[in-house]
Amino acid sequence: MTTPLRVGVLGAGGLGKAAARIIGLKQELQLAAICDSQGIVWAEGGLEASLLAGLQGDLVEGVRQAQAEGESQGGVAVATAVEARHCEDPLGEMIARAPALDAVLVALPNLPNQFIPDVVTRFLEAGHATVFVDVLKRTTAVELMFALDPLVKRARSVVLTGCGATPGILAAAAVLAAQSFVEVEKVDIWWGVGIANWEAYKATIREDIAHLPGYSVARAQAMSDADVDALLAHTDGRLELRRMEHADDVLLQRVGVVQDRSQVEVGGVMDTRQAKKPVSTTMTLTGITYEGRRASHQFILGDETTMAANVIGPALGYLKRGVWLKAQGLHGVFGCTEFLPMVVK
Amino acid sequence: MTTPLRVGVLGAGGLGKAAARIIGLKQELQLAAICDSQGIVWAEGGLEASLLAGLQGDLVEGVRQAQAEGESQGGVAVATAVEARHCEDPLGEMIARAPALDAVLVALPNLPNQFIPDVVTRFLEAGHATVFVDVLKRTTAVELMFALDPLVKRARSVVLTGCGATPGILAAAAVLAAQSFVEVEKVDIWWGVGIANWEAYKATIREDIAHLPGYSVARAQAMSDADVDALLAHTDGRLELRRMEHADDVLLQRVGVVQDRSQVEVGGVMDTRQAKKPVSTTMTLTGITYEGRRASHQFILGDETTMAANVIGPALGYLKRGVWLKAQGLHGVFGCTEFLPMVVK
Repeated sequence: MTTPLRVGVLGAGGLGKAAARIIGLKQELQLAAICDSQGIVWAEGGLEASLLAGLQGDLVEGVRQAQAEGESQGGVAVATAVEARHCEDPLGEMIARAPALDAVLVALPNLPNQFIPDVVTRFLEAGHATVFVDVLKRTTAVELMFALDPLVKRARSVVLTGCGATPGILAAAAVLAAQSFVEVEKVDIWWGVGIANWEAYKATIREDIAHLPGYSVARAQAMSDADVDALLAHTDGRLELRRMEHADDVLLQRVGVVQDRSQVEVGGVMDTRQAKKPVSTTMTLTGITYEGRRASHQFILGDETTMAANVIGPALGYLKRGVWLKAQGLHGVFGCTEFLPMVVK
Repeated sequence: MTTPLRVGVLGAGGLGKAAARIIGLKQELQLAAICDSQGIVWAEGGLEASLLAGLQGDLVEGVRQAQAEGESQGGVAVATAVEARHCEDPLGEMIARAPALDAVLVALPNLPNQFIPDVVTRFLEAGHATVFVDVLKRTTAVELMFALDPLVKRARSVVLTGCGATPGILAAAAVLAAQSFVEVEKVDIWWGVGIANWEAYKATIREDIAHLPGYSVARAQAMSDADVDALLAHTDGRLELRRMEHADDVLLQRVGVVQDRSQVEVGGVMDTRQAKKPVSTTMTLTGITYEGRRASHQFILGDETTMAANVIGPALGYLKRGVWLKAQGLHGVFGCTEFLPMVVK
């Protein structure tokens, strides 16, 4: 068996916790560290996913409780020393440990747009060659990531950006679909998300609220939980979003699937009150074949799959691809549309 | 504008002719040469697609006629000198010209299984570093291609194998779909092909007949056109195939999407009497998410797209990817499941 890749996860919200759980199921990956805005949890030999299983609220507190419970019950094997502590600058702590990480999965909320690009810049300026994968959604944010390309190359690092579901595997599926056509007219992505308990995905939902007419990233960021509750009460818990600023456009334009970003439209429906998806998440690419025929190819996600499975699974597949790229000496910033993600065992 | 890639096409049947037409629509590609079993057509400055537009039967004869008609009408601009001649060994002629080609698309019928691997071996043994793309379908044939890996590496060349529709973009879509799951149970590919005039795709249909119960590659190869006609008369022009020996299995196993090849099933319906597809071509991947939920993702090709568009479009996208791989010094044999094809402008 090969040595597992040591992964650091930035963020311990809904997506960060899902990442910890999925990493725990993979032989090829080891969760070496995870942080939130209050602290860091670190284990040289890899963190047991069970320590994070029931996590609510503060990361460090939760892990300490899980450790205490595990010890008292003798049921949870804490195979390795785990360090869990609050600190002023969890990112700084993670950066100090970067030499012991093979890759970093960025599962932080991205408000404002430059937040995650700034985080990655901090890592890069510390000088360790690393592989970063993000699940950014907004066009502006992904453009900021691409602007880091010279810095990433100097740091002999790899950044894979927009590597969740949309953008992510749905945009990659559009690259496959485009192959049958000599002209692509339109790429439509229409997603459905069902979340039984919106509190677990506060940041994601705030990011979506920012897409609503009359809202902005700044306004969504400033909303209290009570404000969000009030908004959702007006819409029966549903958010329907159209013509979202989603980076599928820049990622598909970059590789030539579309000429113009306006050919890509992303929208969807989020139901914050039940887990059942209100619509099936579907990528539809319409084009003209060399014989002059118009047709549409589709990529449809199974309704039973959750946002977390469709975002974090791909992100980890692209993470393995990023490690491969770095091993080949192919440094720089790449989008989800440039390579197939790899299967992680 | 960058210099177009000079492409040689091996084979001038339905798929070879489609390749010539699609290459003619691409700024980034130039058709430098095409051959069939009787001869070769070659143009230093690139062949006009119009010379091949109405081609039926013998390649060289057809091009000569098109040239003569073009000259007499003064309507077709034959911008460059075209050499069209019958010869004993068209492959040998193509190999002699390999230094002037950036990539070779293999659109030959593959009966028997080792035919195309042998053709590629001949090229490689001549010592020119080249990029090959094939649209092979059978597992055995693709395995023979992978066995060439040491030779391909020594020749500093790149082979991309199984790069049509199935295997091809449908298997690549399965790699994307697999990302949402921690366990893949099954990949089902069910294709529909409608061909108004089976004579244009004789070789493809013979390859499919070889999959029928009671038939073999050798038996299909030995059938006369009249035998094929008689068989099709019995089935009202339809061929329904199940559990085909299709290389999607080895290509998905190789990258870890499935553990066992029996998890991949390929079948479909070919209607040889009408262009309308009898069923929609669909890849369905069923798996279990990290939360323990079973679900299926699907990739569905638009019914209006033809086999030629869905096979040759992807093959040219993978060809561009192959040229990229060679430029990076990444030599060897790769499957359609290892990289996204690139968009060719």
